[in-house]
Amino acid sequence: MAKIPVGVLGATGMVGQHYIALLNDHPWFEVRYAAASQRSAGKKYRDAVAGRWQLAKTCAPHVGEITVEDANDVGRAAAAFKRGDCSFVFSALEMSKDATKTLEEAYAAAGIPVISNASAHRWTPDVPVLIAEVNPHHTDIIPLQQKARGWDMGFIVVKPNCSIQSYMSPLHALAKAGYQAERLIVTTMQAVSGAGYPGVPSLDMIDNVVPYIGGEEEKSEMEPLKIFGAVENGIIQNAALPKISAHCNRVSVVDGHTACVSLEFGANKPRIDEIKKIWSDFRAIPQELDLPTAPARPIIYKEENDRPQPRKDRDADKAMAVVIGRLRPCNVFDIRFTALSHNTVRGAAGGGILNAELLRHKGYLQ
Amino acid sequence: MAKIPVGVLGATGMVGQHYIALLNDHPWFEVRYAAASQRSAGKKYRDAVAGRWQLAKTCAPHVGEITVEDANDVGRAAAAFKRGDCSFVFSALEMSKDATKTLEEAYAAAGIPVISNASAHRWTPDVPVLIAEVNPHHTDIIPLQQKARGWDMGFIVVKPNCSIQSYMSPLHALAKAGYQAERLIVTTMQAVSGAGYPGVPSLDMIDNVVPYIGGEEEKSEMEPLKIFGAVENGIIQNAALPKISAHCNRVSVVDGHTACVSLEFGANKPRIDEIKKIWSDFRAIPQELDLPTAPARPIIYKEENDRPQPRKDRDADKAMAVVIGRLRPCNVFDIRFTALSHNTVRGAAGGGILNAELLRHKGYLQ
Amino acid sequence: MAKIPVGVLGATGMVGQHYIALLNDHPWFEVRYAAASQRSAGKKYRDAVAGRWQLAKTCAPHVGEITVEDANDVGRAAAAFKRGDCSFVFSALEMSKDATKTLEEAYAAAGIPVISNASAHRWTPDVPVLIAEVNPHHTDIIPLQQKARGWDMGFIVVKPNCSIQSYMSPLHALAKAGYQAERLIVTTMQAVSGAGYPGVPSLDMIDNVVPYIGGEEEKSEMEPLKIFGAVENGIIQNAALPKISAHCNRVSVVDGHTACVSLEFGANKPRIDEIKKIWSDFRAIPQELDLPTAPARPIIYKEENDRPQPRKDRDADKAMAVVIGRLRPCNVFDIRFTALSHNTVRGAAGGGILNAELLRHKGYLQ
Amino acid sequence: MAKIPVGVLGATGMVGQHYIALLNDHPWFEVRYAAASQRSAGKKYRDAVAGRWQLAKTCAPHVGEITVEDANDVGRAAAAFKRGDCSFVFSALEMSKDATKTLEEAYAAAGIPVISNASAHRWTPDVPVLIAEVNPHHTDIIPLQQKARGWDMGFIVVKPNCSIQSYMSPLHALAKAGYQAERLIVTTMQAVSGAGYPGVPSLDMIDNVVPYIGGEEEKSEMEPLKIFGAVENGIIQNAALPKISAHCNRVSVVDGHTACVSLEFGANKPRIDEIKKIWSDFRAIPQELDLPTAPARPIIYKEENDRPQPRKDRDADKAMAVVIGRLRPCNVFDIRFTALSHNTVRGAAGGGILNAELLRHKGYLQ
Repeated sequence: MAKIPVGVLGATGMVGQHYIALLNDHPWFEVRYAAASQRSAGKKYRDAVAGRWQLAKTCAPHVGEITVEDANDVGRAAAAFKRGDCSFVFSALEMSKDATKTLEEAYAAAGIPVISNASAHRWTPDVPVLIAEVNPHHTDIIPLQQKARGWDMGFIVVKPNCSIQSYMSPLHALAKAGYQAERLIVTTMQAVSGAGYPGVPSLDMIDNVVPYIGGEEEKSEMEPLKIFGAVENGIIQNAALPKISAHCNRVSVVDGHTACVSLEFGANKPRIDEIKKIWSDFRAIPQELDLPTAPARPIIYKEENDRPQPRKDRDADKAMAVVIGRLRPCNVFDIRFTALSHNTVRGAAGGGILNAELLRHKGYLQ
Repeated sequence: MAKIPVGVLGATGMVGQHYIALLNDHPWFEVRYAAASQRSAGKKYRDAVAGRWQLAKTCAPHVGEITVEDANDVGRAAAAFKRGDCSFVFSALEMSKDATKTLEEAYAAAGIPVISNASAHRWTPDVPVLIAEVNPHHTDIIPLQQKARGWDMGFIVVKPNCSIQSYMSPLHALAKAGYQAERLIVTTMQAVSGAGYPGVPSLDMIDNVVPYIGGEEEKSEMEPLKIFGAVENGIIQNAALPKISAHCNRVSVVDGHTACVSLEFGANKPRIDEIKKIWSDFRAIPQELDLPTAPARPIIYKEENDRPQPRKDRDADKAMAVVIGRLRPCNVFDIRFTALSHNTVRGAAGGGILNAELLRHKGYLQ
Repeated sequence: MAKIPVGVLGATGMVGQHYIALLNDHPWFEVRYAAASQRSAGKKYRDAVAGRWQLAKTCAPHVGEITVEDANDVGRAAAAFKRGDCSFVFSALEMSKDATKTLEEAYAAAGIPVISNASAHRWTPDVPVLIAEVNPHHTDIIPLQQKARGWDMGFIVVKPNCSIQSYMSPLHALAKAGYQAERLIVTTMQAVSGAGYPGVPSLDMIDNVVPYIGGEEEKSEMEPLKIFGAVENGIIQNAALPKISAHCNRVSVVDGHTACVSLEFGANKPRIDEIKKIWSDFRAIPQELDLPTAPARPIIYKEENDRPQPRKDRDADKAMAVVIGRLRPCNVFDIRFTALSHNTVRGAAGGGILNAELLRHKGYLQ
Repeated sequence: MAKIPVGVLGATGMVGQHYIALLNDHPWFEVRYAAASQRSAGKKYRDAVAGRWQLAKTCAPHVGEITVEDANDVGRAAAAFKRGDCSFVFSALEMSKDATKTLEEAYAAAGIPVISNASAHRWTPDVPVLIAEVNPHHTDIIPLQQKARGWDMGFIVVKPNCSIQSYMSPLHALAKAGYQAERLIVTTMQAVSGAGYPGVPSLDMIDNVVPYIGGEEEKSEMEPLKIFGAVENGIIQNAALPKISAHCNRVSVVDGHTACVSLEFGANKPRIDEIKKIWSDFRAIPQELDLPTAPARPIIYKEENDRPQPRKDRDADKAMAVVIGRLRPCNVFDIRFTALSHNTVRGAAGGGILNAELLRHKGYLQ
């Protein structure tokens, strides 16, 4: 089977680099198009990232040879699409919200599906915010989106903020088992890679914690409601629950967001051992389809009392699994636990690639 | 006025070192007696801490010359007491709970008041857990404690765990103003100095967070109830509120425990601006008496949206103030905020010294 | 005695903040003028640094009220000079080298002495690179500088790069005792505060070392030769020795540059114990004059085998002393040792203030 | 081909864990025997390391099931040897030097070859200190060692200290090309994993550098001379050159020792470009034989001016390559450069496994 040629927008940034590195050996997709800011346009990818490459893993030689295009020039991408070099794009654009919105729409209008990491379209009512294990049925809105916009093959799908990744599938698994979370108070300790490069100054991270990340708490509180929502009347209607209150902190960690969660269920309350079983047994469509980037076990529960820890657990199952520990009764709500996910893999590029795999399986990408 | 001669038990450990350093220039107290484990006994203090001294500040020359005694040998302390070299002791013992309990009682029985940092006696019903700004009236139990134990001048007073220090006076100030906290969910990000030396391995702290500190959550949840309790029938009766649920984490910070607090009041709920005023205006007995170690303002509120931060705020007002920021409505409870206090000063040796100053003012030490 | 009114150029930057903080309680100088980039001009200093203040120490209330001027507008400074609000300036400008050079000269031409931290004029032949304990006699070039430039009261004095601070007075003390260093290989492990704010990204410092600091090695190798040079024919003639080879690294430390030095003497070679005595006994003009910012002992030798350490030793003697340890024979050269100095105090603002104190004593400032 | 069954002594310690993890999928060797201290003896390996496992990678399920033996009980290993469960052992013993020496000899006497990481036998004259790319011919001493000791199949081979790993193959490659290093001054910045677990306290590593590692400088200076030595008269005669002076520091890095090297050649001096070519072209027996753990390119040269960096470069080529950068003329000697190697893989378990692969190829293991 020939690989599907894909493009990466914002290919030289931190999330873009992760896309490039994770797609090195992908069985279905092959990077054949890379676009970034005007500053990088015209350079070989290898040269455009020289001195800015942040990862231990290197990029595939053939990707290093790709000439970077100007991401604003949709015509170049359309031409690549026509000549079979770019069937769809991963968007890791780092522009203003408005500019990103407009540009992603222009790619979709040009017939190029956009699998985006950017936050710009997360609150566009007909754009799904996709976590492959949680709301795969939200892809049903794609034909409605295309019809309403007058797009034939292009469409836009986004993924949520990395801060919520570690507790969304756990909440979903519990809800599926009949245990709806109604109220949730969460404190996150987030890795610096979430802020890109140069990102957080080292003067703020050595011997320090910064108890604030702009916009992060609002995203953490609102995005879950859309993800748990339903496709109705051509848009995604938000769920009403759970009510979430988030404290988001930056700590001295490279990769891996940790969340301390206290949670109150509705009338129906599971036992601690029941929850562990629900989580450990949880499998969803990506697992059933055995998608290449899907973790075998989306939720890994650790019995040791001092886990999960970012450095030791973030890479579990290709850095795509959520790792949970310390499940215990909460003195105030029903339960509490600590959850971890790799923010730049599961929470960014890896999550985007898994979304693309799901979309390809459903026939939206070819 | 001649200074009161004091002793430090556990003088070579980390908290002991802080006592020694903080008492260097104290206007009322002078270290004239130092005791530690048998290993250090007989050495000059200077030699006993050589290669183990953790602080930037050095110890006073005359303290360096003190011959360290065996802390288990209460008779040596009693002799020092008699010859006027040790009116009372600060206990920073690092033994088992039972050994500490027994030994602190032996000092008290020998007529030597014990101002302790150890956790051993925190749940002894007639031993007050003192925060000078919050429950100074709990010293009323001292005569009852002495009578019940048959002690004449000796007694035991302890201080609470460092993890709760940053939100106790804020809660107390609100309660005094008529706003009783009923439920509270808190996540702490605690400094490594809280674990002493060698304490937390660097392999656990570089690029990492450890989401567990043995015994810390239980202490954080229970000790406030005793501190907010009342002296009744010769013991301290716990308060019923607030119900507290704590998540305690260790992060890569030298000094300064940060707490993210979500809080629900009873029927009577203050406005955000009202709370800020209550906190900023809060003064208690240590401030009224202008005790030497008391912070001028026990609670400092910072309006910047990314504060408090451990490295930048822990030293506020001699490292004795609590610094708060990010007060905002909570989506789930009423309010949320971030609070910080210096764990080895305010939360340990500095807090102990302030307790001693209060006790001296009340006539319990001379 | 009335305090001398001083100005700070680049007052809102990191080094500027250190000047402001260190001058809070200075017995001779009082900040009455503050200038920065156009962006800050017109704001109160307090507001100009809001959210950018990096230090634990706060600025004096009266300085917070100063209206920041545009540093490019020398006329404003000249007016302040005339009305007695700015007798001289500390320059912590963060502009291009050429812009800094020109601007510092304009201040001097306007009659305002410039005590600079910037590197721009370090290689101007008639501008002294001053370390108060090492080459105080280089101030002799000031009248020649003024005459050559046609300046009456203005002049320019600079201080060297922070990376060399920890071994310059040790080398000087040895040379004075007859032991000239001829060859020196040094590896530095430098703190991130040296790069200002935002400076070094945390992604480069967590679990990492960066083995390169732009321009730092050249400065480390060349500046000592000028400092050890002689005033001849109206310029400073470089010394020929020692030949220096520097490896400069950035490590995860907030403040304090550490240097591992291997050193070869000329024919005359001291014994290890002799060197320790020379260093411990070393006193220079700042000590003899008891200048307010001078450390009592410029060189502190620690016998513990694992010192100096940045966090524990950088604040020695108001952060103005150099701390040395591990002096031992070198297998290849004669001796080797580890030296430390506080880069933003001794190596920057504190060093600049000490220079100003020396210059005032010599009658150059009034 | 059936895999050779191997044992790991000290299997529960940090280096032992690395052996276990690296041997998970080894094509030639399979862990079938694990021994540790008495405390672990009798437990399943999985249980013995519970709560102490330091690595992101987990151990193979079948290894988790192995019952840990007491490492002091050589008889158990001899029995395993006889029943075909342990053809040779990797020693990662963490005992005193004398105890290690005696115990390793007892295994060898029992017929079990010992490939050791411990430092105990590094100065035993007939025990080779092996770096597979540098002195593979030192295995020639094995028959002499066996004969002298009266051992039939058992023998002892050790590997050098991790601190020298990054510059030994570069020096060897240059010497082979005719450029003998005569003098070398090196400063290392070493990772905390080198001290094992718990190892270095976090209080020593946050915002700090420790300029001392016990015994490390002596090892760094002496071991290269044995490795560069020659097998003569039944022992290894040390080389006379290069003379080495080492400054060894501990920095806040998890894995990866960085070395800043200044080097003086003899009369024959290579050009910079020549050196880069020699290093990039360097291949040795492990590469020629394509041994499973051998890096394809033992020395990787990076042209970026700020490399190598531990976090970004330590994992190069299975963490078995040495990564070098910043080669430039030295002001004092001839050249200088920065070199990096992964201390717990290349510098410990990975290096040991590569040695075993070489020995198997040479017929010493079966």
